[in-house]
Amino acid sequence: MQIAELVTPAAVVDLERVERNCRAMAERVARLGARLRPHVKTHKTFEGARLSVAGHFGGVTVSTLAEARALLDAGFRDLTWAVPVALDKFERVCELAARAERFAVLVDHPVAAAALERAAASHGRVLDVFLKVDCGYHRAGVDPLAAESVELARTLATSKSLHFRGVLTHAGHAYDARSHAELRAIARAERQGVVGFAERLRAASIRVEEVSLGSTPTLAVADDLRGVTEVRPGNYVFFDAFQARLGSCELGDAAFSVLASVIGCYPARHELVLDCGALALSKDPGARHLDPECGFGVLATLHGMPIRELELVALSQEHGKVRAKQAGVVERFPPGTKLRVIANHSCLAAAQHERYFVARGETLVDEWRPARGW
Amino acid sequence: MQIAELVTPAAVVDLERVERNCRAMAERVARLGARLRPHVKTHKTFEGARLSVAGHFGGVTVSTLAEARALLDAGFRDLTWAVPVALDKFERVCELAARAERFAVLVDHPVAAAALERAAASHGRVLDVFLKVDCGYHRAGVDPLAAESVELARTLATSKSLHFRGVLTHAGHAYDARSHAELRAIARAERQGVVGFAERLRAASIRVEEVSLGSTPTLAVADDLRGVTEVRPGNYVFFDAFQARLGSCELGDAAFSVLASVIGCYPARHELVLDCGALALSKDPGARHLDPECGFGVLATLHGMPIRELELVALSQEHGKVRAKQAGVVERFPPGTKLRVIANHSCLAAAQHERYFVARGETLVDEWRPARGW
Repeated sequence: MQIAELVTPAAVVDLERVERNCRAMAERVARLGARLRPHVKTHKTFEGARLSVAGHFGGVTVSTLAEARALLDAGFRDLTWAVPVALDKFERVCELAARAERFAVLVDHPVAAAALERAAASHGRVLDVFLKVDCGYHRAGVDPLAAESVELARTLATSKSLHFRGVLTHAGHAYDARSHAELRAIARAERQGVVGFAERLRAASIRVEEVSLGSTPTLAVADDLRGVTEVRPGNYVFFDAFQARLGSCELGDAAFSVLASVIGCYPARHELVLDCGALALSKDPGARHLDPECGFGVLATLHGMPIRELELVALSQEHGKVRAKQAGVVERFPPGTKLRVIANHSCLAAAQHERYFVARGETLVDEWRPARGW
Repeated sequence: MQIAELVTPAAVVDLERVERNCRAMAERVARLGARLRPHVKTHKTFEGARLSVAGHFGGVTVSTLAEARALLDAGFRDLTWAVPVALDKFERVCELAARAERFAVLVDHPVAAAALERAAASHGRVLDVFLKVDCGYHRAGVDPLAAESVELARTLATSKSLHFRGVLTHAGHAYDARSHAELRAIARAERQGVVGFAERLRAASIRVEEVSLGSTPTLAVADDLRGVTEVRPGNYVFFDAFQARLGSCELGDAAFSVLASVIGCYPARHELVLDCGALALSKDPGARHLDPECGFGVLATLHGMPIRELELVALSQEHGKVRAKQAGVVERFPPGTKLRVIANHSCLAAAQHERYFVARGETLVDEWRPARGW
């Protein structure tokens, strides 16, 4: 079966690009001397996870317990849940941890640390834990320069019910970088923040096994991972229009797209309507800080070639509105024409779909079902 | 079971508000002399559909064939699919139409009309069809003032394989209104556009049974539906923060929220992190044109009372970042605290969830499963 035969909207994964992206990152991280613990949040599949761990030790990173369950079911045994653990999840965490060889959670607050310790003790388990560190993103994580951060690490390291694995950070602000130079500075700060904190802990006689960092944009530019043991990029498996704009990849590396049909053609206003709206693509605005006119995705032919004359200017729930930059273009795309939309943000777009149609070229070769929800 | 016992993130529907919203719209539309064909796209459930058709004739509007299947399974027999039909869906449309008493689709282009006619003929069926009219939203629909729009209606009306039901419009640009006066002007233009076009068709001896319009914002302000036979609002069943900002409802009418846990608390920067991100709420930016600081939803207590001191300033995939307007606030929300987030756009947020936990007050009384996907 060919892509063109799919009923739209349909999520399409380009397997050759996924394989190429996985190989490139695995080699890059190995060359830099770290272990790759790929994040599966972008694709949420065991198939994608298997491709991304190839050549490394097999550990993975998850963003939800639903992903963790799916990967445990598929035989993965070394998982890190890289979102600060919620206090109502301890029961589930202990159940999943019982199925894994290593199952690590994150904390960054004494209240959560104390509650986690009590839960582990009451289950008679020792739970693996990372201390989340803020390297400038200012989302989650302790301040690596604050004295109480060292004390929180000590609390974790001295607990009988917790196994303190180490420190972990994520430079999510890399997505906001406005230049390659800024991106490189963020990558350096990500490493320095978490490695420096690990050194402070060691100087305070706290054992730190793992020093973990990672985002796709920072790993695309990182040239120094000294002191880092593990990295956790995830988006690179699919990449997307945002990463291409940021310079982490070429648009030709973007492996996730949504196949859509033209359902409206309005030559008088140089516009088309596609049957892929916010529920097929997510409403991610893309890299607007770099290109205010980036639209909600990049239109491409069935072969995956970008169609630069068309812009996806608006999304409503089930409609995607496309505008041509000049007259005489939309007439070439009458109702029934099928196009692909390279998502702005593949993590959010992929999660809108119950299944991905996996293709080599335009031929379908597999179906993957992401572990959605929580 | 109480809301507070749910594992987060969890979609919560306030049943009393849904009932009240449905009753109010049903009465309002009846008072204005039209029939209510509620849109189910916001909740995508037969339960919500049953509540919204009460007091009217039982017809519904759907945005996807998945919704259509779910409603047919639940016994609904009069459906309008209010998105221009894609040419690759004819087979499915004919199958579903065979299960319905009336199943209408939309066209607005001669290519789609001709293809639909061929498909209906080849299935030996007569398919119900509406001509979609553009009343100023400029998304889909024919220009009501163009001569070829009348000719397209005539093509539909004279087809042996199509049953031309009438004309249909949607003033989606009502969501962009900047004032009550502008909203009322859009509501008037929505009615005048579609009613005027119906009159032109009748003057051209084309029979028009139905004149259909509708959006929640325009129906909230409409005071004249003369010439309109059916209206199709949908969002009002849940309402949301966007509609409250627009003036279609009070925030206290918003029936859909996401229960979330505090997973990070950072007093030094007056911030919290919740375990509900873009995948639990969608990335809908809300009514930014009316309030650039509206954030990604409105934070509320478990009781549903808005917490005005906190703003949901950013969403990443699984994290919601909350900022307090002043010092000394976030300390009241330590890790483990549960809050509700009233979604900016309930249609997009609800579709992120596999199930809704339906509550009366804080007590869970039911679970609804939306018909997601396509």
